Order: sequence, then C-alpha cells, then structure tokens
Amino acid sequence: MSAQKVAYLGPEASFTHLASKALFQDELLVPIRTIPECIEAVANGKVDVAVVPLENALEGTVPLTIDYLFHEVDVSVIAEIQAPIEQHLMVHPNNHKKWEEITSIYSHPHALAQCHKYLYYRFGKVPLEQSTSTAAAAKFVSENEKACIAAIGNSSAAIEYGLTIVEHNIHDFHFNHTRFFVLSRSNHCIQKPGHIGQVKTTVMITLPKDDRSGALHQVLSVFAWRQLNLSKIESRPLKTGLGQYFFVMDVLEDEQMPMMIGAMEELKALGCEVKSLGSYNTYETEKKIASD
Amino acid sequence: MSAQKVAYLGPEASFTHLASKALFQDELLVPIRTIPECIEAVANGKVDVAVVPLENALEGTVPLTIDYLFHEVDVSVIAEIQAPIEQHLMVHPNNHKKWEEITSIYSHPHALAQCHKYLYYRFGKVPLEQSTSTAAAAKFVSENEKACIAAIGNSSAAIEYGLTIVEHNIHDFHFNHTRFFVLSRSNHCIQKPGHIGQVKTTVMITLPKDDRSGALHQVLSVFAWRQLNLSKIESRPLKTGLGQYFFVMDVLEDEQMPMMIGAMEELKALGCEVKSLGSYNTYETEKKIASD
Repeated sequence: MSAQKVAYLGPEASFTHLASKALFQDELLVPIRTIPECIEAVANGKVDVAVVPLENALEGTVPLTIDYLFHEVDVSVIAEIQAPIEQHLMVHPNNHKKWEEITSIYSHPHALAQCHKYLYYRFGKVPLEQSTSTAAAAKFVSENEKACIAAIGNSSAAIEYGLTIVEHNIHDFHFNHTRFFVLSRSNHCIQKPGHIGQVKTTVMITLPKDDRSGALHQVLSVFAWRQLNLSKIESRPLKTGLGQYFFVMDVLEDEQMPMMIGAMEELKALGCEVKSLGSYNTYETEKKIASD
Repeated sequence: MSAQKVAYLGPEASFTHLASKALFQDELLVPIRTIPECIEAVANGKVDVAVVPLENALEGTVPLTIDYLFHEVDVSVIAEIQAPIEQHLMVHPNNHKKWEEITSIYSHPHALAQCHKYLYYRFGKVPLEQSTSTAAAAKFVSENEKACIAAIGNSSAAIEYGLTIVEHNIHDFHFNHTRFFVLSRSNHCIQKPGHIGQVKTTVMITLPKDDRSGALHQVLSVFAWRQLNLSKIESRPLKTGLGQYFFVMDVLEDEQMPMMIGAMEELKALGCEVKSLGSYNTYETEKKIASD
C-alpha cells in the first residue's frame, strides 16, 4: 500500500490512535477533533482513510458514527479493528503520594461510565468532570499539577503526558473491547495478513414505508433461510418520529457471494431501502498496545 | 390515587420535570440528580414512583436507563409519557442586546446534539460546554451574568432561572419527542383518562447461550405468526463481550392476554431469558407544556 494520510479521532494517545497505529505503521496519522469532522475528511478527499470508534462492548454503539454514516455521507468500511480497552487512574507525578486525596476526576463520559462501580465505591464523593476524550483529560491533569486531580485513560496517555498510574484496570467489566471502523471512499477492503474470523458486511436497512406487522421478521427471513449469520443487529431512530427506525446489521459473508447478492435483491424487492457499507476483514490490536 | 412521592431526573425545570407534572398534579415531586439514583430510589422504597427519560426521537435510547433496568433492579413500568422537546437559546437578560457575541454555549450533550446543525452554521467557532442537564446549564448561565454565555434548554428553564430566550426552536428536526418511563415496585399500571394509542408491554429478551443462526428470527416468529405488533426493537450489549446483546421489544398488547401469555411461554421454551417490565398506557403532555 502506498503512503497514505490517515485521519483518526484524536488527540494523540487516544484509544482510536492506538488502534490506528496497529494497522497503519507506515502512513501519516493525523488527529482530528470530532467524529463528524473525521468522517467528512475522508468523504471530501482531504485524507485517504479515517479511523473512528463504532461500538464498545459495555457502552454499545457510538450513535454519532452510525448516524453520520447513514444520513450524511457515502463511504465504505475497508477494515475493522478490535482493541481491548483498559482504563487506569493517573495523577501528576508531584501528586503521587497524596493521590488518595484527589478532589476531582476527569475523563470522557464513556470512560467514566466504564468505571462507574469503581468510582462509586472508591471515590463516591469526588466530583466527576467530563472531557472530550481520555487523552484530553490526561493533558488537562498534566497542565494543572497544583490541583490534586486525576484522569482516567489508557497507558499511552499516561506516557504521552507524563502522568503516574496509581490504580490499574479500574474498568468494571473485565471483557471490554471497542470496535473501530476504517473508512475510505473506495470499497477495496484492506488485505493484510493476520485478520481474524470471517469477512463481514455491514448493511443499513430501512423498512418499507407502510410498516406492516412483521416487516422486520420478513427482513430476517431473507437472511435466515440462506443461513447467513448476523453477528449484530441494532436499531437507530430515523429522526422522523418516535418508533421509526433503521436497522444496522453485520452479516458474516462477503457481499460479492451469490447468497448475499440474492438477499440484497430480495430486500429491495420487499420495498426496503438498503445501504451497504461494504465487506471487510477484522484485525485485532496486540494486547500490549493498550496495556503497559 | 393517594398522595405519593414521585422522584424525577432533576433539577427543577428539566424536561423530565415537565413530563412528570403533566401526569402527577397532586403528588410530591422530588428532583434526583442521576438516572441510577432515581431508579434506586423507587427500587428501595424511598419514593413510590420514579420518572426517567427512556428514548428521544433523534438521539435514540438513553442507555443508562435501559441498562440499569436490565442489569440492576426489578421494577415495573406503570405508564409512559411522551413529550415534545423544544430547544431554545437563552442568555442572562443583562446580555440580551449583545447575545450574538456569546463566547460559549452550555447544555446537556443530547441537547447540543439535537441542535448540531444550528450550532454548526450559526456559532461554528463558539465552544460548546457540556452540563449534566439543560436546567443545570440555564442555572449556570443565570449565576454568571458577567460572562456573555448562553444555555440551550426548554422555556420552563428560562422562566425558572430568569433568562431571556433569544432564538426559539433551534433543534434541527421538527419532530422531536422524548419518551419517559414511570416506574414503580408494583405492577398496577396507571389508569387515568386521556391515554393514547394501544396498551404496550416492554420485554427484555436474552437469546439462548448456544446462539445458533437465526435465533433472533425465531424470536420474531413467535410474535409474527400471532400478529403481535412490535413498535420497537433494539439491541443493547450484554457487557459480556462484543457481539453479545439483549433485545428490548415493545409489543402492542397487554401481557395478560392469551396470545401474549403463549408468546412468553414459547420464548422461554426456546431457551430465551425473558424479563417483562409490564404493560402500561401512554400519556402525552400538552403541547403547551414545553413551549412558551
């Protein structure tokens, strides 16, 4: 693959940055501040590829990513990256000894939610402050050493901003992974060695306007009788009214295979609108990437 | 109904407060700071009823509500309230004349998202600051009149905190409603005049552990052949691993009806775990409640 420009949801040392580095060792990585700006950058051709978070095993889908891909742009998924998420409590080294006296804790709302029980039982009275990312929280703590405050984030953020980890792995559930989408204007999926599992196709389906009883059941029948496995199904509001949804489905098959071509044609014949994000492989970051 | 204590997601003048007032005119309304604390208050018997937001037509489900009801407590839904959501831009009256020079805008992340396009085109360079609720944002602006800052929230918040609305209805999509759940330890649904539509039952379904191909299709078949209409289906992560979900379904039927009893028994026979939140009526707040 030729040298490319890869946008990722920044800042540096964010979880998305860690995931991006695992797949793109030789490309130029560019941090971008928000998910819509990241996706726009690839849609407009300012970068070749964009990496954005899609779904966390605890918190669920990142609505902004799914909704933007459905409503606003036409880009393809050319790879998926799965990364373990390990959250640590970190302070400025000058506050290392008195870390148990912290007066507030900064992190992204998802990270705070992922450590909800730890924070509730260990620091129930310490106010929680939201930041735009775990890395931004670490940066803020590094710049305010006089305040005895802490950040929650990954170990790269601790290294990047010179903080000391005082409690490791404070996330409530042991199994905590995040999926990232690698997006491109082209639909040529990335073919690097080491991908895991089966090829996956993500489709977004809107049911027929005359939403008769069992329309979703009919849609699932199209996949079921062909033994096409769905690894995910999720509904998102269409933004036209309560109770009106589109469905995001991950099918464990390549969209070029005859069974998939038949299924897509049948869905359209049923009156569904179908938007495919393409077929792609899944890569896992090394466990070490997010640990120490 | 005897005098009751009703907890709602506060502070005063929040959208949940407006919804609660529509259904509970004679009860004692108690603001509570977070969704889990609201739900715990009713589960522990500190209050008789709790009102929490469930789903917004634009932003989708409030994950904290659904996840807490699934994982943490056993309470029933005894009513649903639907309320229109109208977002306004408001400033301290002293800053009324120079409102177009505001230097930052405060609101709840959902409200900021609901006004994303307005904010992007009208105030693209003004920093957005997250607050824990729209009412908290209004309160903050009322207490900081020297800073030329604005809040986004409903008209009650403007009245409650003495702010001046400078732009009305700045939400991006005209049709913007939120659903609220009324929760109780008892499963006696509220029977007041004026409810709309059909009775609804909310069930949470976990597929069998040996998640074979088409298990969700099989679950939907149970409803489809009985012509039981689903007004909602949604997946949430089980928090045990990527790709493992439970499903929340709203069925337009009373759980005491023979067809529903049969469907629930069949789901259990298929190896599904089924948690019913009960059957309930839907109430709409008056349009005027959230407008001026």
